[in-house]
Order: sequence, then C-alpha cells, then structure tokens
Amino acid sequence: ANCICCGSPYNLGTTPTPFSRENFVPLNQHSNDELLALRQQVQSRYNSLKSEGLQLDLTRGKPSSAQLDLSNGLDGILQANYMAGAVDTRNYGSPLGIAEARALGAELLGVPADQVLAGGNASLTLMFFAVMLQNNIGCRGSDSAWNRRAAAKVICPVPGYDRHFTICETLGVDMVTVPMTDSGPDMDAVESLVKTDPDVVGLWCVPKYSNPTGCTYSDETVDRIAALGKTADPSFRVFWDNAYAEHHIATPGETLASIYDACLRHGTEDSVWQFASTSKMTFAGAGISWAASSPGNLATFKKFVNAAIIGFDHVNQLRHVKMFPNLETLREHMEKHRQLIAPKFEAVLRQLDEDLDADYGEWTRPAGGYFISFDAQPGLAQRIVDLASEVGVKLTPAGATFPYGKDPQNQNIRLAPSLPPLEEVQKAAQVFTLCVQLATLEQKLAS
Amino acid sequence: ANCICCGSPYNLGTTPTPFSRENFVPLNQHSNDELLALRQQVQSRYNSLKSEGLQLDLTRGKPSSAQLDLSNGLDGILQANYMAGAVDTRNYGSPLGIAEARALGAELLGVPADQVLAGGNASLTLMFFAVMLQNNIGCRGSDSAWNRRAAAKVICPVPGYDRHFTICETLGVDMVTVPMTDSGPDMDAVESLVKTDPDVVGLWCVPKYSNPTGCTYSDETVDRIAALGKTADPSFRVFWDNAYAEHHIATPGETLASIYDACLRHGTEDSVWQFASTSKMTFAGAGISWAASSPGNLATFKKFVNAAIIGFDHVNQLRHVKMFPNLETLREHMEKHRQLIAPKFEAVLRQLDEDLDADYGEWTRPAGGYFISFDAQPGLAQRIVDLASEVGVKLTPAGATFPYGKDPQNQNIRLAPSLPPLEEVQKAAQVFTLCVQLATLEQKLAS
Repeated sequence: ANCICCGSPYNLGTTPTPFSRENFVPLNQHSNDELLALRQQVQSRYNSLKSEGLQLDLTRGKPSSAQLDLSNGLDGILQANYMAGAVDTRNYGSPLGIAEARALGAELLGVPADQVLAGGNASLTLMFFAVMLQNNIGCRGSDSAWNRRAAAKVICPVPGYDRHFTICETLGVDMVTVPMTDSGPDMDAVESLVKTDPDVVGLWCVPKYSNPTGCTYSDETVDRIAALGKTADPSFRVFWDNAYAEHHIATPGETLASIYDACLRHGTEDSVWQFASTSKMTFAGAGISWAASSPGNLATFKKFVNAAIIGFDHVNQLRHVKMFPNLETLREHMEKHRQLIAPKFEAVLRQLDEDLDADYGEWTRPAGGYFISFDAQPGLAQRIVDLASEVGVKLTPAGATFPYGKDPQNQNIRLAPSLPPLEEVQKAAQVFTLCVQLATLEQKLAS
Repeated sequence: ANCICCGSPYNLGTTPTPFSRENFVPLNQHSNDELLALRQQVQSRYNSLKSEGLQLDLTRGKPSSAQLDLSNGLDGILQANYMAGAVDTRNYGSPLGIAEARALGAELLGVPADQVLAGGNASLTLMFFAVMLQNNIGCRGSDSAWNRRAAAKVICPVPGYDRHFTICETLGVDMVTVPMTDSGPDMDAVESLVKTDPDVVGLWCVPKYSNPTGCTYSDETVDRIAALGKTADPSFRVFWDNAYAEHHIATPGETLASIYDACLRHGTEDSVWQFASTSKMTFAGAGISWAASSPGNLATFKKFVNAAIIGFDHVNQLRHVKMFPNLETLREHMEKHRQLIAPKFEAVLRQLDEDLDADYGEWTRPAGGYFISFDAQPGLAQRIVDLASEVGVKLTPAGATFPYGKDPQNQNIRLAPSLPPLEEVQKAAQVFTLCVQLATLEQKLAS
C-alpha cells in the first residue's frame, strides 16, 4: 500500500487486516500543500456523493428483516393451546411470570429460577422499575431510597448505552462516568468512587459485548464488581444489563464469568440486578424479558411492580418457551442470527481498515453484540455525523453514548450495522470513512 | 313468603324480584328468643357447609375460560404477515403504537386518533405512568410536579378500585374520599374539595359500570367533572378509567356521555386522561391498552414513557386490530361476552333477593361491568368475609374498595361472579347470603 499522494510505501502500523486501501489517505509526513491537495481529492469524492441521493441508516441497533423472519413462527405457535401447565396464560396472573419462562431466563442468566421474574416486551421497563424502586421507593424501606440523599450518583462507564442514562436523568439520579476499557469499566476508578463517595449507589453494566464498545468484561472485572457490595452502601446496586448474552459475531464467541457465582462467593447477592431479553433473539418489539436478583430483592420488586401491572403478557411468554424450550434451542437460533449479522460487521471493519488508520481514529472489533465504537480525533464526532447526514447517511447522534448526550471529547460515534441490507451497510461504511477523512483533514489543516 | 320462624306473612318491601325465599330469615318483629332460634337454624346450615369442602372464588374480576375462548383465534391471526401498513410490527417502534390500534382506541373512547397512545397488555401501567408523570416529573416542567407540594391529594370516590388506590399509595400521593352515588361521585363534595383545597390535584373515575358499584355516571356528572378543570390547579387531572366501555350485562346497556366533548365545551382538554383496554374483551393478561388526552399532554407523556420503554408490543396490537377492524366488530364480540356473563350476575342477584332484604344490606344491580357491590350492616364486612373463607368461599378482602384498605364503616364487599362456572357462582352466592344472615344475626343478638 502506497501513499496516494507521494507514492511512498505507507506504514500500516498495527492495523490488523490490510486490504486494497485504494481510498486510503495518509496523514503523516506531508507538507501543508500536500494535505491541501489530499483534502481536495477527498472533498471532491464527498461532493459527488451528494448527487447520489443516499438514504442510509446506521443509527439503531435494530435487527434486520431477515433476522426477524427467523421468528415468524411465533404467531400461531400455540395452536390454540394457551395452557402453561395448569396456568391459563390468557387470564390475569402473577407478576413473576410463568414458570417455564422463568426457567428459561434462569438458564440464560445462570441463576435459580425462583430468583427470576419473566416480564414483558421490554427489559428496559424492568430496569426503569428497578432504578425507580431504589431511588423513589427504597429497597429496604423508604429510608433507603436514594432520593433521600442530596446527590445519589450512579456510575456510568463511557461510552455506554444512552437509554440507561435516560432512565437516570428521568428519575433525577445523578451520573458519574468512568472510562470503559477492553476488559470492562476501569475498576480502579470504580472502586475509588465507591470507596470515597458514600453517595455512589449504583453502577450500570452491559457486561457482554458491551454497548457500544463490544468488550466482554474480564473474569477479574466481574469478580471486582461482585465485590463492590462488600463495602458499598447497602442500597448500592449493579444494573447488569446482559442484553447480548448469546449474540455472537465471532465463532466461538466470548464467555462471561457468572456474576451470580461471584456474588455468592462475596456474600453480595443483594447488590446485583441482572437483566436480559429476547429483543434481539425473536422480535425486537415483541419479545419477553427477565430480571433476576436475590430472593429479598425480588420480593420487594414484585410488590412494587405489582402496583404498576397486574401481570406481564404470559401468552407471549408461552410462545417464547414453545420456540425455545431450553437454552440449547435458543443458541441454535442465535447461530442463524450470527450468520446474518457477521457479514455486515465484517464489511464495516474491512472498510475502516482499508480507508483509515490510527491517525484518524480507533475502533473496536467486537466478537458479538450490535455495535462498533469509533473514536475519531477529539472534537470531530459532531462534524463527522453532520457530514454524513448531509449526504444521506444517518449516524447515531454524537454524544449519545455519554450521560446527558455530552461527550467531553466529542469523539465517540456508535456504528450500528445490523438493520440495513449488506450492500447498504457497505455503502454507508464507505461514506463514513470518507467523512472521517474529510473532517480529520479539515482539522489538521486548520491547526 | 312467610316467616320461617312464626309463619306470618313477611313484607318484602322494596325488594324488586321476590322469589321462593325458602331460606329467607326475617329480622324484624321478633323477640330475642325467636332471633336466637333463627340463628340456631342459620348456624346449623352454615356448619353443614364446612363438611362440603368447597373451593369457590368470587374475589377477582377475571373473565371465565369460556369468555377467553372467544378470542382463541388471536394467536395465529397474523398468518405470518406482521406488517401494519408500512410498519414492521416485529421491530422497535414508536411509543405511541401502530396507527390502526390508535384508531380503534379513538373510536372506542370517542377522541381523535392522534390524541391516543396504544399501549401494552395493561392500562394499569399507563395509569401508573400518568400519575407518576404528574407527581414525580411534572406535566409542564418540574415545578408542576405534585410532589413539590406538602400534601397533594387525589379524590377517590368510594367504594372504588383498589388498584387505583395502590398507585397513589406507591407513589406517595395522598387520597381523599367522596361518596359514590347512583349517578357517579357526589359532585357537590368533589366541587367543594376542588374549590377549597388547592392541593386537590386529581380525581379517579371508572365512569361506566363503575368498579364496584356498577353505576354509569350521569350526563350531568360527566359535564361537572369536565368543568372542574376551569377552576382547579393547572396540574389537576381526572383519571378516567373507562375499563368497561362495552361490557354490558343488560340489553340495551347504558350509555356514557363523552367526557371529551364536555372538555371541548369547557376548554379543559388538558384536565382529563382517558384509559381503556381489551383486558376483558380478549385476553385479560394479553390484551392491548389505550391512553388519550390533549395533544400537549400526550407529547409530554410520550417523552416520559419513552424513558421506560422503547415501544409497546406492536405485534399484539396488530393481532387485535385484525380481530377488531372497527368498533362494530368489537361490539359484536362483546355481545358474546354478555351472553356468558349475564346469567352469573342474575344468579347472584336472584340469591340475594331470595335470601336477604334491606335489614341485611343493600346491593347494586349493575347493567354492566364485572361487580356487584354489597353493603352489609356497618361493622360486618370483615366478619362476613371471614365466615365465607372458613367454608371455602373466597371473597375480595374487606376494605379493598377503600384507600389503604380501610373501609371506615367496615360494610362494603365486592362480589365478582364472572370467573367461576355458573353452578359454582350459584353455590358461592348461597354461601354468601348465609354468611350475611349469620353475621347479621350475631350482631343483632349482641346489641
């Protein structure tokens, strides 16, 4: 691979997969005039995109139609038999869900079934209620409610999942950030916060194929998180959103240590709430969800949730356990998802590898989940999103991966390649790298 | 009908349907000794019940299996076509619901479709969120949040629906009661509260076939409720839980004036939230729900609810609009429910009429809904529930129809005849009247 400007061989450095790089624009070892010429080239290619009238969307971690088709058998799967054992799923029932659905969630999360609640189509709602219980109601009587404090704070590893932040913001819970590393949250920073600030009462986690960086927490990280409850305030809770437990891209996928086992070792079962759902297994908007914690927590949660719902949709729970009678069948189903989604991630990563290097930014190579996290040069995220938008490629808003939508470095962009067809993903990735090149050249020339 | 004690003709008074009355036990015009003998007879019949090992349940307003069977076609109704127009219901989507489901709710509630949110399987959740929005978040900025006040109060007509009270209790909203009359809440009392207490910020209503009295609010009551917003605090809200809009027992059923039209007349559209669901049309635990209010309220609500859910289950919404493409088909379906449920209400009312009169209590004769409200002699509700429980007949806990579960007169009992088969309803009603007789005789003899 040679410089398109001066023809000299270009050092690809640590980029793992060198491809053709026909559109690679080297940044280093060039005079200002040469950079101006490079920008001219890039700008010219960018301008030509405007006439293409693109309408591409990499904003949302949505399954594609082909993925959704995998579960089309759900409607009608009951064949007019709505009984779950002796339970008529059509009628009102327990807020803990039907036994079969709780058992499936227990297998997925690696916990006893009697510590699992099976919920409706949104684990987000269960998280909202769990945070609300902690903040507004109190996990052990009203004195334990976070909102009795002047400034209860929840730790948010960043970049992270915007909807976790929105729950805190909506309920008036403050957030404090720690950096996300390749092995999970910066645990030195987490432990220091928990140790020094008694108002730190929570921690958000997407422990496997994290949103958006894709990392899976290391065994050591899981253990240290489970240990937090030993010294933290009794109302401290980890919100363990295991949204991508079986959502592999690589084969084999990564494995996550059991937070439940770690809590048992440390005697901190009360300190962790686990969540999962089938949103990206069956239907994104019509799946089922789970929450799991200690028996005491679950009893308190059940009473609270029962004020807001008589029972979740047990018919849909029954549909799901008919489709997935056990974890093994669920895993076979997820392999079909993997085959549909992996080529899209490969396409984006190939494009990034071909067109960019560390002078432009850094990006993750997830073995699972729904996102690639891209860190541009500081200050450029918004510009890149705007440039892409102008030529018809929607990206997740800059800042979305940070609390209050404010990325202090203005550099993180979350790429979500799952929804569009492969050819659109390829095109959108080409546009993206071009926008990164243009924004970076602009910045370099302005400095 | 003659007195079983002295043989003299008994004056049936205003009891509307005199039947055989073979077990009727007259209370008046008897000496203490005669009453003792009567109690002996009743006690003896009660004791013989104990050996029958009954397991009957009149506690919950649940549809019966036969009613649920009416909607068995729901699962599979989509025939693998999950599209609602251009919307793929399987994927994530808007928190306002699919257009077709919003349109059905609009027809049911008599409001414009763009003022309707179509939700999940629980209108209770929508009510919880609406009260939470008012109380914790604020309907127009945080200054308007009820919890900024020392003592925000919501008016609860009593007897009423326990789950409305639980929402208030859970969210820390105080409750103040007004009597329920045959034409709805005592509006003089309601208006007086709104006028004299600026901390009165809400009113719960089940306007049609009210839970538990079965009354339908009169046109005048509806108009006066809509007018409350003219003078009440701007954060005042009526929670109009139209749970039984099409749930007739009598033919023809009763009609409810449009609160929406009344609000338009008074310019108080912001003051009312309407709710409805298909819980007692299709599947109690797996239906769909609606909330409706002014465009401003709905926009605020949408933003808030979106913090707790990405979208409701649109697949199930689509199933429901396939089953009910319009209000007319829904009404035809509800007529089938009526035919199943009416005989059970008739059976209970016949038993009450045969065995009791005004000396024992008063009861309602609903033209729709799910309940009969029975007022025993003051002080006897708990005793009657206990007596029934001892012989295997579960009744709704005494006090459940009042805030905090406290019936100041300890006299109201809610009877729910929908769930058990007809023969069980008949038997349970016989047990009930016997327990009322026994408790009343006990009281009379002790006084």
